[in-house]
Amino acid sequence: MTTPETPTPFLVFEGPEGAGKSTQIEHLAARLRERGHDVLVTREPGGTPPGDRIRSVLLDPELDMAPETEFLLYAAARAEHVRSLIAPALNAGRIVLCDRFAASSVAYQGYGRGLDPTWVRDVNTHATQGLHPTATLLLDLPAAEGLARVAARGATDRLERADLAFHERVRDGFLRQAAEDARWTALDARQPEDTVREDVWQAVRPLFPTPVPPS
Amino acid sequence: MTTPETPTPFLVFEGPEGAGKSTQIEHLAARLRERGHDVLVTREPGGTPPGDRIRSVLLDPELDMAPETEFLLYAAARAEHVRSLIAPALNAGRIVLCDRFAASSVAYQGYGRGLDPTWVRDVNTHATQGLHPTATLLLDLPAAEGLARVAARGATDRLERADLAFHERVRDGFLRQAAEDARWTALDARQPEDTVREDVWQAVRPLFPTPVPPS
Repeated sequence: MTTPETPTPFLVFEGPEGAGKSTQIEHLAARLRERGHDVLVTREPGGTPPGDRIRSVLLDPELDMAPETEFLLYAAARAEHVRSLIAPALNAGRIVLCDRFAASSVAYQGYGRGLDPTWVRDVNTHATQGLHPTATLLLDLPAAEGLARVAARGATDRLERADLAFHERVRDGFLRQAAEDARWTALDARQPEDTVREDVWQAVRPLFPTPVPPS
Repeated sequence: MTTPETPTPFLVFEGPEGAGKSTQIEHLAARLRERGHDVLVTREPGGTPPGDRIRSVLLDPELDMAPETEFLLYAAARAEHVRSLIAPALNAGRIVLCDRFAASSVAYQGYGRGLDPTWVRDVNTHATQGLHPTATLLLDLPAAEGLARVAARGATDRLERADLAFHERVRDGFLRQAAEDARWTALDARQPEDTVREDVWQAVRPLFPTPVPPS
């Protein structure tokens, strides 16, 4: 069983497409590992064999699906991710850094697609066994800028191709969640990569006190 | 949008593994087509491009997954099935015959796997948009007999390989739903195939009044 308050930090990076989440997760993981921490880096949807199969369905640009279908697939991947990967890692004393978590469904399928937010949160609670991130880093930038960054990379997936108004609702959904929860930190992702890296570190540093050197 | 009471019949066949659902659905479809009805035969999970992909994840004997993951995948396939296939067919005046529907999740993931039945029913309601079958035919037989029939066919999938106690809970879950809802008819699936076929027909016949011949 997972306990809602875990002893090792569970850190989640959220934000719109193209905000630089995966880059910043790698920076933070490297910094934590240099300091001797055991770190697991993972992402949604995926991270488990069923999750990877679900990911391929969700991101297939050839497949159309209803918002409810999309949400239930994310929730299915999340349920597996928590039970078979995240909770066991936290229970073993590892730090977990995760690219997206339950808040992405609130933003994308709730605010973005218009699903009932109470239902989205209720399904999330069952999917996550009530596990909450210790801290959430929101890498925020205007939807149009994020989409331009993604387009510059080349091929886009099914969600990245939704229209700008959708992505603006998603951004709003993230900002509202950040405003409502003191465990969130919103960062300006338009800053240079090194600046964002230091902002991330300042936000999470209190969770990692400097180890006392052996005397 | 789907209306809970649809003008054309939506008939669901439920029951444990090996009860003969697909055979009886084909018999009923043939009889209805002989009478000039436009009939759609479909099954859960599947029936749509995303649903078929989800089906391959659910039935893969190599994949282990949590009960919550399994349920959310069925619910995702169901949401797509209702929206893109069942509701449009009913709205177009077609009769829909479906091999398994929401009651299978109550039986398998609720009674069988022990998930909270209130949550299972709530997710089903969102997944189905509140659509209820006009009639449900439960092809009932003892769990051990159903499993023996399936084993005689050869390869078994992930759900069919669960233990006997699980399948007995599933059977109990179906019988209880049949007892609670007057729209269900429970039939003894151990009878000869032709006898079951006639029992099915007697159960649904009142839904299909004999057309008046042109005078």
